[in-house]
This record gives sequence, C-alpha cells and structure tokens, in this order.
Amino acid sequence: MIASTPRPPYYAVIFTSLRTDVDAGYGEMAERMIALAREQAGFLGVESARDGLGITVSYWSSLEAIRAWKAHAEHLVAQERGRAEWYTAFKTRIALVERDYGFGEL
Amino acid sequence: MIASTPRPPYYAVIFTSLRTDVDAGYGEMAERMIALAREQAGFLGVESARDGLGITVSYWSSLEAIRAWKAHAEHLVAQERGRAEWYTAFKTRIALVERDYGFGEL
Repeated sequence: MIASTPRPPYYAVIFTSLRTDVDAGYGEMAERMIALAREQAGFLGVESARDGLGITVSYWSSLEAIRAWKAHAEHLVAQERGRAEWYTAFKTRIALVERDYGFGEL
Repeated sequence: MIASTPRPPYYAVIFTSLRTDVDAGYGEMAERMIALAREQAGFLGVESARDGLGITVSYWSSLEAIRAWKAHAEHLVAQERGRAEWYTAFKTRIALVERDYGFGEL
C-alpha cells in the first residue's frame, strides 16, 4: 500500500538492504517490527518492497520519534540480529520530506 | 544494488507506485528512464524494488537537478503514459537526506 501521509514537512527513513541466505525467523521479525513501528508515537506510515534489493520507507512526524524508535528495546534486538544474521549490507537514510504529490486512490 | 551516495546533504525522490495490468512496453520504458536519469547532471544513484508495490528512490545533488529531470522531454512522455496507462496510483516525495549510515559493502 502507498502510505497516506499528512501534508509535508515530515520525515522519511529510507532503509535499503541486501539479505543473506539465512532465514532464521527473518520474515516473522520483519512483520513484527512493522507492527511495532505502527504503535509508536509519531509513526505516519510505511511502504515496503523487495525483489533482491529490499526497500522499506517509514514516515515519521519528527526526528525525536525516529530516535525513540531506533532505541526501542525490541527494535534494538532486531537491529543486532540484522547485522549478525540477516543482512549482508544495508543503508539507512534519514530525510526531511519537503514536498509530495500523487495520483489515484492512496 | 544499494546506491553509493556521497556524504549528506543531498536529495532523494521517493516514487511509490501501484501498476495497472497493462504492459504495453512498461518494462522497457522503466529501464530507459533509469538509464536516462543516470546521464543527467546532479544524478547520484537509484534504488528500485517491486513486489506488488513498487518503490524507486533516486538521489540528486540539488532541487534544480530534480526539476530539470522532471521537465526532461523524454521523461515527460513517460510520466504522461504512466498516468494514462501504467499506474493506478503513485506518490512522489521529495526529501532532503540529512543523515545516513550503513553496514557492509555498498
């Protein structure tokens, strides 16, 4: 689904990743992290796709909300397992959305 | 591939889309647009994935570079066909990347 975000400005966290061959509960953890993110203060939406390269973009009301999510205890465990088991490489970019426009039902 | 971008600040264009069932040269056009974007002044990199939802993030040195690419004649034709034939919905977000960090070979 295309995330239905408010009028800018707001923040985007662009998380791009390449997976290892290790499963070890990756799918369940990814789903759990998205469900948990949705419960956080300042969460605005998320979009995700993978075909080889994975791209997950989450939207947030402020840098404080992003910092709190990054430091969430359960998320810290997932981040650690990500580095150790699930990802060969990733990049996280934190960006201020200044403008948006679209077309069709969102 | 994870894009190898310079140290922030730089810009990201996050393009999220849902496709129609119409093919009509979509794959060729998508590849052509990525090849053409790579030739533009200020282009820094691109990442793309689709599994149902499509997410393409392109990176640019400035808003001026983004505006010039949006107004490129061949890109305008692709945008028009996108609205008319290929997408049921899309959202474009223009964002200033303030910070990034990563792990692994990029």
